[in-house]
Amino acid sequence: MKTPTNKVKIINDPIYGFITIPNKLIFDLIEHPYFQRLRRITQMGMSNLVYPGAHHTRFHHAVGCMHLMQKAITVLKNKGVVISDHEKNAVCIAILLHDIGHGPYSHALEHSIVDGVSHETISLLFMKELNKEFKGKLSLAIDIFEGKYERKFLNQLVSSQLDIDRMDYLKRDSFYTGVAEGNISSERLIDMLNVVNDQLVVEEKGIYSVEKFIVGRRLMYWQVYLHKAGVVAEKMLVNLLARAKYLANKGEVLPCSKALHYFLYKEVEETFTLQTLKTFSRLDDYDILSAIKDWISHDDKILSLLSEMIINRNLLKVQLSNEAFDDEYISKIKNKMNQEGWTSEDLKYFFVEDTISNQAYNDISSKIYLYYKNGDIVDIVEASDQLNIQALTKPVVKHFLCYPKGIKLA
Amino acid sequence: MKTPTNKVKIINDPIYGFITIPNKLIFDLIEHPYFQRLRRITQMGMSNLVYPGAHHTRFHHAVGCMHLMQKAITVLKNKGVVISDHEKNAVCIAILLHDIGHGPYSHALEHSIVDGVSHETISLLFMKELNKEFKGKLSLAIDIFEGKYERKFLNQLVSSQLDIDRMDYLKRDSFYTGVAEGNISSERLIDMLNVVNDQLVVEEKGIYSVEKFIVGRRLMYWQVYLHKAGVVAEKMLVNLLARAKYLANKGEVLPCSKALHYFLYKEVEETFTLQTLKTFSRLDDYDILSAIKDWISHDDKILSLLSEMIINRNLLKVQLSNEAFDDEYISKIKNKMNQEGWTSEDLKYFFVEDTISNQAYNDISSKIYLYYKNGDIVDIVEASDQLNIQALTKPVVKHFLCYPKGIKLA
Amino acid sequence: MKTPTNKVKIINDPIYGFITIPNKLIFDLIEHPYFQRLRRITQMGMSNLVYPGAHHTRFHHAVGCMHLMQKAITVLKNKGVVISDHEKNAVCIAILLHDIGHGPYSHALEHSIVDGVSHETISLLFMKELNKEFKGKLSLAIDIFEGKYERKFLNQLVSSQLDIDRMDYLKRDSFYTGVAEGNISSERLIDMLNVVNDQLVVEEKGIYSVEKFIVGRRLMYWQVYLHKAGVVAEKMLVNLLARAKYLANKGEVLPCSKALHYFLYKEVEETFTLQTLKTFSRLDDYDILSAIKDWISHDDKILSLLSEMIINRNLLKVQLSNEAFDDEYISKIKNKMNQEGWTSEDLKYFFVEDTISNQAYNDISSKIYLYYKNGDIVDIVEASDQLNIQALTKPVVKHFLCYPKGIKLA
Amino acid sequence: MKTPTNKVKIINDPIYGFITIPNKLIFDLIEHPYFQRLRRITQMGMSNLVYPGAHHTRFHHAVGCMHLMQKAITVLKNKGVVISDHEKNAVCIAILLHDIGHGPYSHALEHSIVDGVSHETISLLFMKELNKEFKGKLSLAIDIFEGKYERKFLNQLVSSQLDIDRMDYLKRDSFYTGVAEGNISSERLIDMLNVVNDQLVVEEKGIYSVEKFIVGRRLMYWQVYLHKAGVVAEKMLVNLLARAKYLANKGEVLPCSKALHYFLYKEVEETFTLQTLKTFSRLDDYDILSAIKDWISHDDKILSLLSEMIINRNLLKVQLSNEAFDDEYISKIKNKMNQEGWTSEDLKYFFVEDTISNQAYNDISSKIYLYYKNGDIVDIVEASDQLNIQALTKPVVKHFLCYPKGIKLA
Repeated sequence: MKTPTNKVKIINDPIYGFITIPNKLIFDLIEHPYFQRLRRITQMGMSNLVYPGAHHTRFHHAVGCMHLMQKAITVLKNKGVVISDHEKNAVCIAILLHDIGHGPYSHALEHSIVDGVSHETISLLFMKELNKEFKGKLSLAIDIFEGKYERKFLNQLVSSQLDIDRMDYLKRDSFYTGVAEGNISSERLIDMLNVVNDQLVVEEKGIYSVEKFIVGRRLMYWQVYLHKAGVVAEKMLVNLLARAKYLANKGEVLPCSKALHYFLYKEVEETFTLQTLKTFSRLDDYDILSAIKDWISHDDKILSLLSEMIINRNLLKVQLSNEAFDDEYISKIKNKMNQEGWTSEDLKYFFVEDTISNQAYNDISSKIYLYYKNGDIVDIVEASDQLNIQALTKPVVKHFLCYPKGIKLA
Repeated sequence: MKTPTNKVKIINDPIYGFITIPNKLIFDLIEHPYFQRLRRITQMGMSNLVYPGAHHTRFHHAVGCMHLMQKAITVLKNKGVVISDHEKNAVCIAILLHDIGHGPYSHALEHSIVDGVSHETISLLFMKELNKEFKGKLSLAIDIFEGKYERKFLNQLVSSQLDIDRMDYLKRDSFYTGVAEGNISSERLIDMLNVVNDQLVVEEKGIYSVEKFIVGRRLMYWQVYLHKAGVVAEKMLVNLLARAKYLANKGEVLPCSKALHYFLYKEVEETFTLQTLKTFSRLDDYDILSAIKDWISHDDKILSLLSEMIINRNLLKVQLSNEAFDDEYISKIKNKMNQEGWTSEDLKYFFVEDTISNQAYNDISSKIYLYYKNGDIVDIVEASDQLNIQALTKPVVKHFLCYPKGIKLA
Repeated sequence: MKTPTNKVKIINDPIYGFITIPNKLIFDLIEHPYFQRLRRITQMGMSNLVYPGAHHTRFHHAVGCMHLMQKAITVLKNKGVVISDHEKNAVCIAILLHDIGHGPYSHALEHSIVDGVSHETISLLFMKELNKEFKGKLSLAIDIFEGKYERKFLNQLVSSQLDIDRMDYLKRDSFYTGVAEGNISSERLIDMLNVVNDQLVVEEKGIYSVEKFIVGRRLMYWQVYLHKAGVVAEKMLVNLLARAKYLANKGEVLPCSKALHYFLYKEVEETFTLQTLKTFSRLDDYDILSAIKDWISHDDKILSLLSEMIINRNLLKVQLSNEAFDDEYISKIKNKMNQEGWTSEDLKYFFVEDTISNQAYNDISSKIYLYYKNGDIVDIVEASDQLNIQALTKPVVKHFLCYPKGIKLA
Repeated sequence: MKTPTNKVKIINDPIYGFITIPNKLIFDLIEHPYFQRLRRITQMGMSNLVYPGAHHTRFHHAVGCMHLMQKAITVLKNKGVVISDHEKNAVCIAILLHDIGHGPYSHALEHSIVDGVSHETISLLFMKELNKEFKGKLSLAIDIFEGKYERKFLNQLVSSQLDIDRMDYLKRDSFYTGVAEGNISSERLIDMLNVVNDQLVVEEKGIYSVEKFIVGRRLMYWQVYLHKAGVVAEKMLVNLLARAKYLANKGEVLPCSKALHYFLYKEVEETFTLQTLKTFSRLDDYDILSAIKDWISHDDKILSLLSEMIINRNLLKVQLSNEAFDDEYISKIKNKMNQEGWTSEDLKYFFVEDTISNQAYNDISSKIYLYYKNGDIVDIVEASDQLNIQALTKPVVKHFLCYPKGIKLA
């Protein structure tokens, strides 16, 4: 039995200094195995192959979000926004748990093993289970997480164009990758937050911090999240897991942990059963990577080669373009691959054609509002002194091809 | 086949900015699977249970060392120290590979699975294997690593009281843990290096940087490396692996990866065979942690409980003291444990009595010398204006006990 | 006589760490009274009234520029650009001295006391004087400063859209003001520089650093350089000095230092005589501010009130607008002022109508070029993935009015 | 008349980000000319001759202290220490104004122009004047400043071995000089503060932060505050001002500002009259430096040469020693100076013999107490694990001589 003595109440964070855990409920949620699992899931998946410092975890991000949320609530209360202790606690829990449903290499997983079930859905399932365990104390947090609470600004703090989630992950990812271009001023932004008519707004003088936030986010997308080596590594992982699933369906033996075995050999229903959820709660980066390491010596050549390439960071070549590649060019590459002995089955796994896109500011899904001293509330796109931010609302699409490095077109 | 195009020549580092890989030999060493393995071995073992930001890897540390070494060589050459390109390359390779023999949770491993074989020994084995593969190009690096090269200062840059290894890891560990007290000024120290009579020295005006280095190192030991929660987690891991080895010896089945299986079920000889080395090169944090996760449901209660405790961060209680605990007190705890149902077999694994110690500056093994304008060369202990540094040469020992949290002495 | 012993060769800089002075010529230039004067001229004029940390001097900026220039030359030489030691020295001197002609509160001065003589002109005069003193050793530096040297990229390093001047001052001003939005990555930018066909270019992968540079520059303009309180303080200083000059012309006695007296009471010719230059070399912030302090008790009410307002940071009110203010509105304010006892003579000094403007990237005067692996050289405006940077080429103009705080329009 | 609109309520600080001015009373104190004067007094006097970044002002330090004090009070209140709003405000005002009596180049002044009147005395005079103006609202602040308030820990926050003053100035001076060795963790220290039996204590786990604070303070003394070039510059300034005062006493004309004239020509009584105080409130760095610049062309050779040397940073040579210099050696230098034409009158100003000393932790004047979980309260000297801190309680004295650079002893 664990006793309440010796409880760690302060967490060291290289970014914010000390993070304080405000009360026993939140402490117990952090101690819960469902949450502790996030210690073993990296925030940025395969990106550490490109940025070797990027090994920070979803655990750290979640705790960082809770810290910023406490700060945001304090700022808003100091400005006269009435927020009850119950609401404060709920919004802190909502942000703490918002990513609890992320699996290992989340996006890769969602496109292979738990096909069709988003991490948001799983987060909600975990929160509901925890709510049972904690006797209903998470109900308001769940409402806020689902965006259903009547006080809209609390939902917006958890999920919107300028939510606490983004404020932490942009800053944190910039810090750990060393890509200074994305270092936004989260604490300055939070100091400028306010609430008008139940709408989260940024005070007038925060306009340049918002601009830097949007520009910084865009730069992080191009330099980090959509970095071509990171993208190809993820594609290779998707293909690898798809191959593993295909072999499992055929009944082949794949050495791996029990939790991963469950997801490889069972068709996962769209609505998780409790057993599926519990098994998912034991699945993390370590199951995936240690299996891949063992698969290097598997008899299936495709599985084996993809495994070796990922482990030894021997990635496919990537070609990037502003326009779609024409069919002729693609055929040329495929023919060349055939000539060099790659079968059409191989091509399913070692040739990729896809797109990446980046929209720094999506003014349709939700907006960032500036609040002027004269009472006006204006969308940042209009408030900004020129076309600059408006330009950033246009999504940019890039096309890419991946194929083995040896393939040379004369 | 990998082609030389698209080679990453610059590595992002949150601490130093850009790290440049100076030439193809070093590039190829970094790309080698032996070295890429270090991407999957954390620098600080279980410390991330205490400092959640401390997930940086031995890969990153090794590359950071190479960067600082390049800087040190440039500084020395600018001061007129003659260093050939061959020597520069060799000392960079020596520091790059100095930790290549570290296994996962190195210290835990050395006390359980590869009992008696130090990571330095294994590093040397890897370097010799690589030297064969790279046709003798690593010979001088190996001499320097072994401290056998005739130009002593090059050996000292790789291993001494003020070596590049410490300059990187203190700074890096401080950065990732967020423990600002240990943030030493590596780049200032390097700027002050010089060589006199083949001895690495620090110029006079660097005296305060050296003092800060020694004091910072001591603070990092107490706050981080010897943090009681980290120490107990490592002890628990040692006990867990010892239990696994014990069960393996008895012939029990332990689900785990092939590489870990090899080391659990085979008695490892003091001098690794090539097969042992190759298997070791496939062993990393992922083998250990994913096995532990599966062992939570193992039939052996001791193995299962230790596994669950480590995975869910439910650690033993630690009691610290400046003096040794008296036998009576220890008996009391053990009796209490017996009363609560822990058997004497259990006690081998769930009760720990041990010491930790810290010596900030060891003036016997080697010294840090200051170089004065008038030509004098003085040990920092004597140069420092008072007893301060001398005080730090005295090793400090602390005693500790670990036992289950539920155990209360009336 | 000063002897060459004990020469400080390393300068501490909070931004770059240590700055090394590379040789005796540069050391002697830094020691020269003409250059030492820059220690007494703040880089940002009246901005410390808004940003209290902004007390850094033109001395520090100039030395920082020299440091970055050394780094830039090293980077270019490592990439194979041939640069002789003579050229390296010259371009370092050119950047070191590029601001030596700045007077105290430069822009204010140029609009009042040394009307019509730009600081660039005066810098050139100083450089020519120093060239005589140092027996022609500055000739090449002067050519580069004047943009006349045949190797264009050296001139561009000193003066262009992406010159070393901007790289230092944006970073430095961001550091000292605490406005993180302007913290550009000077060292990353420099690492990406190259020279193609005698044109300074930025390598392809530096595109996001360039974008951040342009965006950061724009943010610094709006948040710092054109901050309304800073702008009004400067306007008030212009008016104050104009009043002093007016009174001097009338023959009134104005207590002040000898150097300031010279410029107040003498009509300064467009081409400085040697005497004017020598007197200018003794004029700095201390002459101006200590005079203003004494003028608080001057009989002239306008001079006295403006002096008191500046010293005690009691600034005029500023009103900002995207459009020009209409005449009717302006008349209203002036009438109100008249009603409250301000004469039309007063209005010349206490009412201001003016504009400020900001153009983040001026693609007409000169361009920033990106250099692609395939050999293409492309203007950043076209290279950027969208309208974002193009938007920033449009100058933005804001109109403002200043008048006493007490003036209220019903 | 100034209206309350447009009040700046947030101050940018490069160290802490935003500093909030909590209420109108504090805002009005900051706006007061007595306090605004601190904008024109550098925190570190002549140190910018050594560390060119060190131009930060006493204004900025005072405001930074107020910020840290607000944080400290919040931390203590969160730990259950009862502090009324009135007390909070008073302790913030006490720290805000604690340095308001500093004159320009304070220590130099105290040894020349306002001989015998300490800045603490003058601070108290200003606070009493302001208390009249603000109708008694500063009474409690004054009690705390004088150490007379019944709740001792509030006095200790303002003045003790670990007061808010030191926490700000060590951090700030380290930041602006770039001497990273002194970068203490003010915010971590504050997080560890607590109050037991009306005594300010640091919680047990803050022990290493306290150690770093003491060691950092010592390093800042040797590297910055007692840097030999800074020390000699200050000595020269003392001698220069003493010479000016001597000439003034003789009735010679010394061009200077009115405020400086008052202090040069009048014998200042130990207890300032109101007129003296008001004149002092108009005296700042600008009066001193602009006078010195004009004195370069004064007829008195001693005044003129000292002025020229300070302005052009042509300092006396310094010789440092752990022991006192013997009389014979001193005579040798003086004789040599005589031979080279320096008269005995000159020697009073151009030859200095003095000592500097440094005591990192003074355990007699007051102590830093650690607070253990078991309730123990222990002096840091005893709590520290070894002799390290005890060593730092011993004062270290160094002897130095200053004389013209040209003087060479064969």
